[in-house]
Amino acid sequence: MPSNARDVDQRDPRVIRTHNDVAAAAVRILINEGWDAVTPARVAADAGYSRATIYARWPNRTDLIRDAFARYGDMLHHDASGEIAHDLRGELASFCRAMVDQRLDRALAILAERSQTTPEIAPVRDAFVAEGERPMRLTLEVVADPHAREAAVLMLCGIVTHSMLMHGTAPSDEVLDAGVAIVIRGLAQHD
Amino acid sequence: MPSNARDVDQRDPRVIRTHNDVAAAAVRILINEGWDAVTPARVAADAGYSRATIYARWPNRTDLIRDAFARYGDMLHHDASGEIAHDLRGELASFCRAMVDQRLDRALAILAERSQTTPEIAPVRDAFVAEGERPMRLTLEVVADPHAREAAVLMLCGIVTHSMLMHGTAPSDEVLDAGVAIVIRGLAQHD
Repeated sequence: MPSNARDVDQRDPRVIRTHNDVAAAAVRILINEGWDAVTPARVAADAGYSRATIYARWPNRTDLIRDAFARYGDMLHHDASGEIAHDLRGELASFCRAMVDQRLDRALAILAERSQTTPEIAPVRDAFVAEGERPMRLTLEVVADPHAREAAVLMLCGIVTHSMLMHGTAPSDEVLDAGVAIVIRGLAQHD
Repeated sequence: MPSNARDVDQRDPRVIRTHNDVAAAAVRILINEGWDAVTPARVAADAGYSRATIYARWPNRTDLIRDAFARYGDMLHHDASGEIAHDLRGELASFCRAMVDQRLDRALAILAERSQTTPEIAPVRDAFVAEGERPMRLTLEVVADPHAREAAVLMLCGIVTHSMLMHGTAPSDEVLDAGVAIVIRGLAQHD
């Protein structure tokens, strides 16, 4: 491991490994122990690097949080078939699985809360949410009316975020099925 | 003001006034300064009562938070006409206004985040959210299929919560119009 990674080629495999280790440690600490626990010292200890390495590459905490969420985003997967109802339902299923299995609910609640009081976190939230919504927005690109398209994205994402963050539980499969069916029928009549 | 309100009749107007003053102060502090600022000492100072009064009636912080949210819920208003599309749209407008004018976005983000780590807060969140969703659930009682009904509630509330908490902004009027139209058409075909 390089003692100071500042000037090292970003394609250097050691640099990439350090980056991934540190980002993964920051995600773990954030999800399990909360915002205040994500300090350079704690991340250094958890990832097995020196504090000097952490401070050199992530001079402030927002840098660490930003890379944690970029890494977290990479862990979340979606697939697409080209059939709209099937793809929307699959994306909602992935979204719910990530909420439960990867504690995405925790990450989103922390981002929502912190973005309101810490302005430099809002762009981290925006990038993370944009990446998360991307497959659903691609699937819904066929909807001609931009307001109907935006409403469909917000409602389908919202069925999961509202349920997880406001009720503390994932919507049932039957409710997700019904939500997709309502949106597909409502959009079909619209266009 | 009673020096110790523990044994005072709950219908005593002085008791009610103390209760309202303290709950309103707790709301203000929560919204403006965050969770950690809501301490009995800080609430006492802000509401203009002795710490003894606060400790006597709100022996722990969860009591203070619970009454703050009950008071907050009373501040949020809805109206109903009996015409479903109109009522749903009106409830979404009220929801958005409360998010912006009364910082409901801040209250919901704090409740979502804290409920995940502080188990005694989950019932406070559940009661507050149930009260907030009540008018929309009443309006949608006409939907026969329980899964479609639940999906419609989650999607319509979610269009606002997802937009406010994940994008940091309220949905536009045009997007809210489109959302209600999609749900109404989707439900009509369903039944």
